Amino acid sequence: MANTIGKTFSITSFGSSHGKALGAVVDGCPANLELSEEDIQIELNKRRPGTSALTTSRQEGDKIEIVSGIFEGKTDGTPITGIVYNTNQISKDYSNIKNTPRPGHGDFCWMEKYGIYDYNGGGRGSGRITIGHVIGGAIAKKLLKTQGIEIISHVVQIGDVKADNIDYENLKDSIEKNNVKCGDEEAAKLMEELILSKKQEGNSVGGIVETIATGVPAGLGEPVFGKLDGDLAQILMSINAVKGVEIGLGFESAKSSASEINDEFYYDEEENIKTKTNNSGGILGGMSNGMPIVSRIAVKPTPSISKIQNTIDLEKGENATIEISGRHDPCICPRVTAVAESATAIILADHMIRGGFIHPTNLNKSI
Amino acid sequence: MANTIGKTFSITSFGSSHGKALGAVVDGCPANLELSEEDIQIELNKRRPGTSALTTSRQEGDKIEIVSGIFEGKTDGTPITGIVYNTNQISKDYSNIKNTPRPGHGDFCWMEKYGIYDYNGGGRGSGRITIGHVIGGAIAKKLLKTQGIEIISHVVQIGDVKADNIDYENLKDSIEKNNVKCGDEEAAKLMEELILSKKQEGNSVGGIVETIATGVPAGLGEPVFGKLDGDLAQILMSINAVKGVEIGLGFESAKSSASEINDEFYYDEEENIKTKTNNSGGILGGMSNGMPIVSRIAVKPTPSISKIQNTIDLEKGENATIEISGRHDPCICPRVTAVAESATAIILADHMIRGGFIHPTNLNKSI
Amino acid sequence: MANTIGKTFSITSFGSSHGKALGAVVDGCPANLELSEEDIQIELNKRRPGTSALTTSRQEGDKIEIVSGIFEGKTDGTPITGIVYNTNQISKDYSNIKNTPRPGHGDFCWMEKYGIYDYNGGGRGSGRITIGHVIGGAIAKKLLKTQGIEIISHVVQIGDVKADNIDYENLKDSIEKNNVKCGDEEAAKLMEELILSKKQEGNSVGGIVETIATGVPAGLGEPVFGKLDGDLAQILMSINAVKGVEIGLGFESAKSSASEINDEFYYDEEENIKTKTNNSGGILGGMSNGMPIVSRIAVKPTPSISKIQNTIDLEKGENATIEISGRHDPCICPRVTAVAESATAIILADHMIRGGFIHPTNLNKSI
Amino acid sequence: MANTIGKTFSITSFGSSHGKALGAVVDGCPANLELSEEDIQIELNKRRPGTSALTTSRQEGDKIEIVSGIFEGKTDGTPITGIVYNTNQISKDYSNIKNTPRPGHGDFCWMEKYGIYDYNGGGRGSGRITIGHVIGGAIAKKLLKTQGIEIISHVVQIGDVKADNIDYENLKDSIEKNNVKCGDEEAAKLMEELILSKKQEGNSVGGIVETIATGVPAGLGEPVFGKLDGDLAQILMSINAVKGVEIGLGFESAKSSASEINDEFYYDEEENIKTKTNNSGGILGGMSNGMPIVSRIAVKPTPSISKIQNTIDLEKGENATIEISGRHDPCICPRVTAVAESATAIILADHMIRGGFIHPTNLNKSI
Repeated sequence: MANTIGKTFSITSFGSSHGKALGAVVDGCPANLELSEEDIQIELNKRRPGTSALTTSRQEGDKIEIVSGIFEGKTDGTPITGIVYNTNQISKDYSNIKNTPRPGHGDFCWMEKYGIYDYNGGGRGSGRITIGHVIGGAIAKKLLKTQGIEIISHVVQIGDVKADNIDYENLKDSIEKNNVKCGDEEAAKLMEELILSKKQEGNSVGGIVETIATGVPAGLGEPVFGKLDGDLAQILMSINAVKGVEIGLGFESAKSSASEINDEFYYDEEENIKTKTNNSGGILGGMSNGMPIVSRIAVKPTPSISKIQNTIDLEKGENATIEISGRHDPCICPRVTAVAESATAIILADHMIRGGFIHPTNLNKSI
Repeated sequence: MANTIGKTFSITSFGSSHGKALGAVVDGCPANLELSEEDIQIELNKRRPGTSALTTSRQEGDKIEIVSGIFEGKTDGTPITGIVYNTNQISKDYSNIKNTPRPGHGDFCWMEKYGIYDYNGGGRGSGRITIGHVIGGAIAKKLLKTQGIEIISHVVQIGDVKADNIDYENLKDSIEKNNVKCGDEEAAKLMEELILSKKQEGNSVGGIVETIATGVPAGLGEPVFGKLDGDLAQILMSINAVKGVEIGLGFESAKSSASEINDEFYYDEEENIKTKTNNSGGILGGMSNGMPIVSRIAVKPTPSISKIQNTIDLEKGENATIEISGRHDPCICPRVTAVAESATAIILADHMIRGGFIHPTNLNKSI
Repeated sequence: MANTIGKTFSITSFGSSHGKALGAVVDGCPANLELSEEDIQIELNKRRPGTSALTTSRQEGDKIEIVSGIFEGKTDGTPITGIVYNTNQISKDYSNIKNTPRPGHGDFCWMEKYGIYDYNGGGRGSGRITIGHVIGGAIAKKLLKTQGIEIISHVVQIGDVKADNIDYENLKDSIEKNNVKCGDEEAAKLMEELILSKKQEGNSVGGIVETIATGVPAGLGEPVFGKLDGDLAQILMSINAVKGVEIGLGFESAKSSASEINDEFYYDEEENIKTKTNNSGGILGGMSNGMPIVSRIAVKPTPSISKIQNTIDLEKGENATIEISGRHDPCICPRVTAVAESATAIILADHMIRGGFIHPTNLNKSI
Repeated sequence: MANTIGKTFSITSFGSSHGKALGAVVDGCPANLELSEEDIQIELNKRRPGTSALTTSRQEGDKIEIVSGIFEGKTDGTPITGIVYNTNQISKDYSNIKNTPRPGHGDFCWMEKYGIYDYNGGGRGSGRITIGHVIGGAIAKKLLKTQGIEIISHVVQIGDVKADNIDYENLKDSIEKNNVKCGDEEAAKLMEELILSKKQEGNSVGGIVETIATGVPAGLGEPVFGKLDGDLAQILMSINAVKGVEIGLGFESAKSSASEINDEFYYDEEENIKTKTNNSGGILGGMSNGMPIVSRIAVKPTPSISKIQNTIDLEKGENATIEISGRHDPCICPRVTAVAESATAIILADHMIRGGFIHPTNLNKSI
């Protein structure tokens, strides 16, 4: 079950970059959630390439088709299957990958592990497989919205450009004002410039994506091996190119003293329990504490670059070089935001049901 | 199954800080592995407190007792149960936690989630529960050793003191020369000073622990949701106080260009496939590539400090303060190294079996 | 994950009787198994109705389409998705089920559990969903065949007609000589007559299907909760209309003494270990012993009959009657044979991989 | 995780017949359930041997010790670990099993699978390991009782003696009136005689145990692969010596017509939905329908008998004979009743939580 995640609300992902189709089976969604193909299409469009100069020029329609699990416009408790048929795949671009694995890519590992590898478009190693995440995430987000939970991902760093002046109050709107999905207008401009300059030189650049979930009640997550931060880290690591995950202050907390970063509790005016700061990122002891859940992921630069690189020839058993043609993203971060939101939503939906906050079989029943 | 991790080689952890006992059931270990209580005791001793001025002065014997799964000195394929009976627990220290949750601790979340909470010593929220990790990890390490896999964790940062000059060649020996488990002798001294100064002021400090696994073959890990880095991130996040996980360059890669960090493949003189650099930390596409697996975790400062802190009184429903007495670690990082090694070993053992590198039922059978 | 079965070789089933499509995602099949749509189509044709007067007259094309997991004619280690689009579904037949649940059917339970129910054709409660079993089973059978394992299911009882004179030597051929899939030619005739007479009276009849798996090595199955017979029982119970499962002598053994039924071991002429009898059905202590695995399932009469029956009206909250029109099977047993073979194959494939008999990732690698 | 069962309420069983201890870790029990060692001891005493002439004369104290998961007399949401230390084990009785596997036992399979086998007392193949079931079952029963669910198992057949006149109205009392746990007083006498005569001749006899769960709400069980009957069948098959499981009419339904056995729905005087008959055993489409859940298991005669039997010598590689000494049960059925109750309770508890009938983390919270 290497392609299934989630215990109660779970998704099983399938498909490859240039195969017939990609998709996901979403199991364990409570019945009576209104759901349409449009709900999923909106989210898929966010991760689709070809929408700005910052992404690959590949045009991928990525049209969702739901083939099971919906009855009269609502989920009915049976597995929901969403499929995206591949239509714009050009396989000739990838023939040289077959025996000369691309540096920074999983090609070599796929060959080692399985002895056979659909190298076209990177097969199932392609970032395109996150379509499965987004199908599951779109449904999870719709479910979470019924409970007042909202999730937003945004770019906080590209290369050495950091967003220091993020408009957190109007984050949703402000990230739509630029193609980088950054909430700091000034930084966004510099990020765009950096990405375009990398594109020009046939190179790519990494970045950091932050995800914030608001409205999450206290008590999600199960110690010890089902901790909320553990499950988030696992699914965020399943996103291609992610090399690090941190919660709240994250690596910054390594430098700190407890007296500086312990979040002190207090009752606010409406008798709600809150913490003055949120250095823990909303998670203590592996469980949510009612504050926003904040995570950040390190996204490495897309390894496909047009520069000639050294590698090996597996067939000849000797050193070789590779020059990767094709249409690649100079920076994947803006598109990763949609996937990070989805990944976060899947885990939160699973824990909301498992934690007794959402009825497991029928959304119309109170819990 | 919130207390079970691993799919084939799995551990089920149980127990709390001041309950009768702590321990783990280790299931799925192949038969015919020589195993004694001594093998586990050695690892438990590494995480045991009270061994230097840098740790809490609590003396915990932590004596392991194996009550199942061993026959004539060898594993026999049945679940191995290791138990550590609690002997030195003083519960009076913790009575004030009951209604006034400690900032930075999970106390509040436990109460919210379960409506009842063994607050003594932090109950199952205590770092003491990592005894379960170490029982599982000791067995995993013994199993991995038969395949030439070695795992070592060391401290690379405490507060703002970074180890820049680590003796990677003699890491195993060099980290034993100081109480911080740091491979940079100069840095170790500064780290010790920093920890002791924090101890003096009733404060604590965080740090970073790096784990390196060598001898791991290419092909471990299962895309998409069983990726090796995803599984490592999940288990590392299950260690108390961990707020971030990174693989290879990790967050550093966010700043980089692909041309700088792509690891180029080559055949070495013995026809082995290697990469010139190891920025990927031995994992590409979620699978091991044959290079050392390198992870780093951000460990926050132990939240228990003697300073008065603001918090709430859950019984009275009003703001309050708390002063935490008791014997606490001014820096948990040196002790975390043993747990990080164990956590890493559990995941690698599971994937070695699942990947077809170790026979799933009988170590004497070839695969 | 209520729609997923198997731990390593697993299938996730989806779809409903009158929805857009039915199918399954098969995960964990080792790479390098030759597999075509034809391999699955052959098995689907065995369970397809409309092939004789004994089954429903519904014509269901049930054409398989594989949309992922195959590369150049072979499995590549990624999830295999098989889809059957529904084409011949007539929903008007079922409108009266909506509020008046059919006796013997799950309609009422679906409504109670989910509060919404796709009653058309019985929704996901329909026997039609065993298409998912067969997709998984076809792949499992192909995989098992590479190891010399063959599986055959046949009808041994319909109503009170028992097959006492089964041609076990030529079972595969003999069951093809009649429409009941019975290896006793005389009994088959009586069974056919019984089924047709039930059909005439708008009634239906039950029966028993036996499944035999040969070539299974000793050592499959994991005590205590992963026993081979336990896993077989679970999956066989997932087949619609099955109300009982027995292994070997099964319920007959309740009447016996150990001295009568203990299977004595011996070395045959080729030094193979065998038992003189096979009353255990090839399973001892939850593990295969090298003898044929023999199971039998009790299949109840198809509950859809044209007779007027008493039931309730959920909308009006009062007692009511129902008359079920539509095209139903007077006896489902002949078609169940294909599903029982598939179900058995799925479990055996999973255990063959988990037991170290088949390499988990690459069929070309020796174990 | 071969020794773990249940998805949310799960038990991990460990230990062997003559090892240091046996027990179980019970995970996922909601907090705030009052629980004492006495609650478990009562159930363990029911399965304990040596209580009548019908069972083995072995005296096993089977004293439970709870070492985790209880705080101030209540469950606290952390894993509950129950241990029974072995005290009365005599290993010299079993030395001849080492190389000459007992017919009807799993000895041979254990050796084949693991290459090492704790043959003393049958190791983990012994019926003694059902202590783990009972520890989990006792907790599950206590939890279910808070919801009005009661479970009772009784013997309905021993050899060819069937209980035809069972006092179902006073079942709980009537089965305590005899040592066979049979609700038909006349049959019980004949059963006792049969068992004693088998004991006299150094033989054993099988039987059938029926389990009835009342108070179960409609809607438990998850189609397709988490069906309630599938999960019950799996766990019941995990009980040593069980060779068949049936629900409701079971194998009898194979002989019937739908018109005879379809359970017709009706509203009773209190507007409750019921069925006139309960041939389905309370389960339709894999889900409970609100009627009593009725299962029956076929228990084979204990294979350990004092008669000389043919077997093989694995060391010499030749045919051999074996004479089994020791103290064995001439009929295990009376003791199996306690285990069948426990097994049923575990599955129902798991499904009650997963189905949204019991709050997953805190029994004091309404659902």
